[in-house]
Amino acid sequence: MESTQIESTVVEMARAARVASRALASVPAAVKDRVLLKTADALLAQKDAIAVENAKDLDAGRDKGLSAAMLDRLELSDKVISSMVQGLREVAALADPVGEVESMKRRPSGILVGRMRVPLGVVGMIYESRPNVTIDAAALCLKAGNAVILRGGSEAIHSNLALARVLREVLESEGLDPAVVQVIPVTDRAAINVLLDQEEYIDLIIPRGGEGLIRFVAENSRIPVLKHYKGVCHAYIDADADVETGIDIVMNGKTQRPGVCNALEGLLVHADIAEDFLPGAAAALERAGVELRGCVRSRGIVPSMTPAADGDWGTEFLDLVLAVRVVASMDEAIGYIERYGSRHTEVIVTRSYENGQRFLREVDASAVMINASSRFNDGGQFGLGAEIGISTTKLHAYGPMGLEELTTRKFIVYGEGEVRE
Amino acid sequence: MESTQIESTVVEMARAARVASRALASVPAAVKDRVLLKTADALLAQKDAIAVENAKDLDAGRDKGLSAAMLDRLELSDKVISSMVQGLREVAALADPVGEVESMKRRPSGILVGRMRVPLGVVGMIYESRPNVTIDAAALCLKAGNAVILRGGSEAIHSNLALARVLREVLESEGLDPAVVQVIPVTDRAAINVLLDQEEYIDLIIPRGGEGLIRFVAENSRIPVLKHYKGVCHAYIDADADVETGIDIVMNGKTQRPGVCNALEGLLVHADIAEDFLPGAAAALERAGVELRGCVRSRGIVPSMTPAADGDWGTEFLDLVLAVRVVASMDEAIGYIERYGSRHTEVIVTRSYENGQRFLREVDASAVMINASSRFNDGGQFGLGAEIGISTTKLHAYGPMGLEELTTRKFIVYGEGEVRE
Repeated sequence: MESTQIESTVVEMARAARVASRALASVPAAVKDRVLLKTADALLAQKDAIAVENAKDLDAGRDKGLSAAMLDRLELSDKVISSMVQGLREVAALADPVGEVESMKRRPSGILVGRMRVPLGVVGMIYESRPNVTIDAAALCLKAGNAVILRGGSEAIHSNLALARVLREVLESEGLDPAVVQVIPVTDRAAINVLLDQEEYIDLIIPRGGEGLIRFVAENSRIPVLKHYKGVCHAYIDADADVETGIDIVMNGKTQRPGVCNALEGLLVHADIAEDFLPGAAAALERAGVELRGCVRSRGIVPSMTPAADGDWGTEFLDLVLAVRVVASMDEAIGYIERYGSRHTEVIVTRSYENGQRFLREVDASAVMINASSRFNDGGQFGLGAEIGISTTKLHAYGPMGLEELTTRKFIVYGEGEVRE
Repeated sequence: MESTQIESTVVEMARAARVASRALASVPAAVKDRVLLKTADALLAQKDAIAVENAKDLDAGRDKGLSAAMLDRLELSDKVISSMVQGLREVAALADPVGEVESMKRRPSGILVGRMRVPLGVVGMIYESRPNVTIDAAALCLKAGNAVILRGGSEAIHSNLALARVLREVLESEGLDPAVVQVIPVTDRAAINVLLDQEEYIDLIIPRGGEGLIRFVAENSRIPVLKHYKGVCHAYIDADADVETGIDIVMNGKTQRPGVCNALEGLLVHADIAEDFLPGAAAALERAGVELRGCVRSRGIVPSMTPAADGDWGTEFLDLVLAVRVVASMDEAIGYIERYGSRHTEVIVTRSYENGQRFLREVDASAVMINASSRFNDGGQFGLGAEIGISTTKLHAYGPMGLEELTTRKFIVYGEGEVRE
């Protein structure tokens, strides 16, 4: 496609999304929920047709020499379809945030003032290979009253279009504008640049994928972006930590699912507890296949560790590798996290009331935890119902983003003819 | 100053602000309040020294041929000093938002999850001539635990530096880092560009001033910007409105302070009430010196109106001018507001329950009101205590921004050794 054609295609989609979003903002919850439930049924009913489109992507992927892991992420297996169906039903069951007013307060002038939750408008999602994001993200955007424009990876284009078609058919059958959910049919990367320029029509961009994609989006967008680049999460074992609790939390954080952003990448151990803690922790981690890269002091206690290189501090390994450092004080631990952390998730293991409170207060991260696994930083685990992403920037949302983060609040006023003095 | 020097000056200030903000985040409310109250006293005590610096700006302004209105805005009169002093005392009296946790909820895993309010970090304020913004904005940022970098108009540079010096001396006397409040000493506009590039150190930019300044900031910033370009506010007189209530609200909205962003710029009248409403409203407005620019239908009822030109719809007059249009339906009114409004403040005057509710729900603006004057869209009037600006963008804040909007919330977790299954 030529660049002028790409531009007109994407601009027209953005414009249509804006129009659709206006109407969607006042669609009752019951209608939105019916769309979600009917889409769940339709995905199951149309599984074969979806598989045909998915096979096109898988074949092309094999021809392009994609890795087995990439092909696995691309496949819309029965299990993936089931999880999308379950996700749709869960989102349908969530309370509709739109129109919610927490309280109205009487002001001295006589007016009653409150804040009503309203949709953001139009959301642009830019993501990499997993095609299930198409349904998961569309469901959350729709429930929050937003139109969504989806731009998945080029290798999943047939799958993404097929999934969106199912949703759009249901939207039409309910008398809603199908432009509420649109997949950009252009695989050229130029389409992303055009999308990121449509500040007149799009209110928020959410990128999900590798750090490269996210940096590209953040650097080229004229629209606000909610993002996290990476998750470099730490557990700090305080001087008077319970050793078993510490080992459980570090093992869970590092080994339960090492490839995700809330996995642990660094372990900080107070010098006073290092000799009690490190040998047992290292033995458990090494038994689980974790490579430990230690500072001089930790290797003095556990000689089997690999010497840590400078580049290991603050690295997102996404693998069974853990950087280990002995610190002389909690100040040093907090300073280390400040320098090497990614403001994602930080954990203290302690029995000290003061140290726990201080860590909660002073550590700057989207989630700060006492005596719990970093793996809990997740919309579902936190009770948001489902998440559309995690933000490590502080404006608007900090941490997992659920339905509420896909809305904003406007002020509403009930008066009886009041005027300003 | 050379451009490399400007750059290094501003970058160094931004870096110092970031460092200062870390320490400020855990300063107790009592210390912050003491700084605010001592600054109020110091402003009164150092009035003469401030006047000397202010006189330099006023002299330079006269030499440059600034208008009387501009010189008036520049002057730190006794009245302006008093209002800054009162503002400081009011902000000191507000509750500290930092550390607030609304609720902690137990999750099925056993963890307790809540959200703690924390400072944003570093705020950059870019504003035009009024030097009192230096104190007003610094007070709010400080109370919310943020460091602030202030860049006022070049014509107020001596005044701004003098005001900041008073605050910085108090900060130092309380053992706090004076880099919490910094005024950029460079009047060259290049300093703004450097400031807008410091995304590593600055979390939020708030521009206040004319539309030109705000567009410049929005277009050149790599940092999130909370802004409103202009206030084009409307009152819609519904078919069954109370006529007297409508006239009161329109008179107040247009004439009480025509030069501000929550003043009315447009009047929409339902055709069914136009003959009852317009003659009385027009008479009152014209007696108050308001020029009415009417559509054909409104001029058919009130022939004394000036014919409206196309360019009058959606114009921010900031003066005693009002665009008047008769509409055939509430749909037409909502469509007009959608097209010509600025998402600032929109008012319906009605006695209909359904129409009032529908207007609240469907009109997209930072404040939507039933039977109340648009002039109430203000942080003080809404109960926020004080405002640092108004946002008509939807991310993070929509409407007046007070202390709460200068903070964000991080997730906190209390655990007892829980790990993820």
